Amino acid sequence: MNKTFVLAPDSFKESMTAKEVCIAMEKGIKKVWQDAKVIHVPMADGGEGTVDALIDATNGTRVSVEVSGPFPDKKVTTYFGMLGDKKTAVIEMAKANGIDLVPKELRNPLKTSTHGTGELIKAALDHGAEKIIIGIGGSVTNDGGSGMAQALGVKFLNESNEEIHACGGDLSLLSKIDVSGVDKRLSHIEVVIASDVTNPLTGETGASRVFGPQKGATPEMVEILDENLKHYANIIKKDLGIEVEHTPGTGAAGGLGAGLLAFTNSQLRPGIQIVTETTGLEEYIKTADYVFTGEGGMDFQTKFGKAPYGVSKLAQKHNKPVFACAGYIGENIEVLYDEGMTAIFGILAKSGALEDALASGPENVERTVENIVRVLSLTN
Amino acid sequence: MNKTFVLAPDSFKESMTAKEVCIAMEKGIKKVWQDAKVIHVPMADGGEGTVDALIDATNGTRVSVEVSGPFPDKKVTTYFGMLGDKKTAVIEMAKANGIDLVPKELRNPLKTSTHGTGELIKAALDHGAEKIIIGIGGSVTNDGGSGMAQALGVKFLNESNEEIHACGGDLSLLSKIDVSGVDKRLSHIEVVIASDVTNPLTGETGASRVFGPQKGATPEMVEILDENLKHYANIIKKDLGIEVEHTPGTGAAGGLGAGLLAFTNSQLRPGIQIVTETTGLEEYIKTADYVFTGEGGMDFQTKFGKAPYGVSKLAQKHNKPVFACAGYIGENIEVLYDEGMTAIFGILAKSGALEDALASGPENVERTVENIVRVLSLTN
Repeated sequence: MNKTFVLAPDSFKESMTAKEVCIAMEKGIKKVWQDAKVIHVPMADGGEGTVDALIDATNGTRVSVEVSGPFPDKKVTTYFGMLGDKKTAVIEMAKANGIDLVPKELRNPLKTSTHGTGELIKAALDHGAEKIIIGIGGSVTNDGGSGMAQALGVKFLNESNEEIHACGGDLSLLSKIDVSGVDKRLSHIEVVIASDVTNPLTGETGASRVFGPQKGATPEMVEILDENLKHYANIIKKDLGIEVEHTPGTGAAGGLGAGLLAFTNSQLRPGIQIVTETTGLEEYIKTADYVFTGEGGMDFQTKFGKAPYGVSKLAQKHNKPVFACAGYIGENIEVLYDEGMTAIFGILAKSGALEDALASGPENVERTVENIVRVLSLTN
Repeated sequence: MNKTFVLAPDSFKESMTAKEVCIAMEKGIKKVWQDAKVIHVPMADGGEGTVDALIDATNGTRVSVEVSGPFPDKKVTTYFGMLGDKKTAVIEMAKANGIDLVPKELRNPLKTSTHGTGELIKAALDHGAEKIIIGIGGSVTNDGGSGMAQALGVKFLNESNEEIHACGGDLSLLSKIDVSGVDKRLSHIEVVIASDVTNPLTGETGASRVFGPQKGATPEMVEILDENLKHYANIIKKDLGIEVEHTPGTGAAGGLGAGLLAFTNSQLRPGIQIVTETTGLEEYIKTADYVFTGEGGMDFQTKFGKAPYGVSKLAQKHNKPVFACAGYIGENIEVLYDEGMTAIFGILAKSGALEDALASGPENVERTVENIVRVLSLTN
């Protein structure tokens, strides 16, 4: 009866953190098998919840900081994570410069800046980070990461050698980039960018055209922003010798992908890979009899880099059964069966308002997992 | 791999008949095990859906009839069932005289009558029934079954030997019951009353006080109705020598329980027992590897005579795993585990309006059963 369960759910957005999902799952398991060995490996996919999941999965710590918000004159108090190894920091750009921080009617990608994200990186360096994992989803910026770089000492100068505002609307004024004052620590550390976006910086599939409108860009603004990022890429090429305009992924987070590639020692990697590696999930799965995962919502798109997909593939690799729970089950969920998923269960107890479903998350996960384990117990 | 599944769900009210649930369940099973042997035994608990379930489970037929509605001057077209044995008829009183047939503001238990229910019985006799199963839940009447008896030839006479209206409000006029003209066939047939109600005909827990208000009785009407049923029971005792006032179950269906016991060769039995026996469920379960059941809504009250409970107990008796699906999972569902239920799963794919959930019933049952079988397939 001494079965080992590895619990690797993502958060259930607006309902439970990944850690809370683990706790609810464990309760359900223990109702059936009190002696089960249960290992919590809270997951994320590089997007929202990545800092929390990696802190929780590695017994890391939260470090509070005050940094510039999307409009740099307004500060936000947020945090980054120092992982259990005490060497790796984990940052979510959206915690400083995210879309949820600006009401829809105030969004203006001509003005918003990633300056605060640069301050988060600086704070991590100040805290002794030797490696930085940065999730860049959910931005409200379109500045090519210039604000981030400026916060780390890069000078963006106009024709008169005066510093410009590092924001999407002012990049047209850029004439020269001076990296002589950049934070020297940046050259010694590895930056891992968690991003599943493969868009280039500019053009039809670039940052401004694809993601600009949701950040408040009018059709006219989109033209300006795209033009400005093109100009920015040209100056980067001229002064640093680095090509960022067409590289896949440089269009992520309003061009923050480009900025990080240009000004830090960084690589872009799929979020779920970073999370599974950082948490050591695969080693845990090797010891498991059963793996549980899940996310607030799952459908065929889960296959495109979501946490339950990553967990499922690892379980499949090691021939372990893996079960998923979700509050929302959408179209063509069955494509996941071929990716290793043993079974997927909805957790809802009743129809009705979303807010009630969100509030009932823990009890619904607990009950559903209990019942899955009751089925498993038939043959054990 | 050649597993045998017995599918014995109740209907999912306003979403699927029991038969439709069976079909959806089979689809889910066959997606995993194409060669599975699947036996449909649609269930009911003696209430709504009992006629349909027993017809479907025994390959019976529907027989259309026009009978008196709750107000006898208005006819309703409905049906009863002749079961596969061609000897047993099954009737639901609510199809003739049910509460859903009268809008709330028009309900008047002084006037409503079970006359149409008597006509259904007569139609069954005309059709050659040797046994009648009658489900008496959901009535809008409070006439003690006098209307039913009148339709079968019993005369309810006043002091002037004139026939009275057989309805709850007029029973005070009753002076004498003449059964000389009763349908002679009634003495040769067995009537099985499906009822889980144990209330007596009169008094604090009697038909009028407990069920009268939902049928439109004001407090004043309740007093009249209770008094009238008491008088009715006294006349029955005087003229027929049968005591029905305090017998448990006589208060079912506004006293239709009493009327059936007094005027027919009948016995009251729990609905789920009648349904499981009539369908031969236990014999099927003996052959099963897995049993599936379910109902639109399940909670701790399922234990009080609902179909999934009856199915679960039979599965437990024969040591078979039994799985339930439900659209609504309410309080303390875990009490069912001790009653043999292996596991219970909610079927909903998303939060939102009840009407959407009802419309998605078949696909949700199919997906949920498919995933349960995917778990089962781990060890087979």
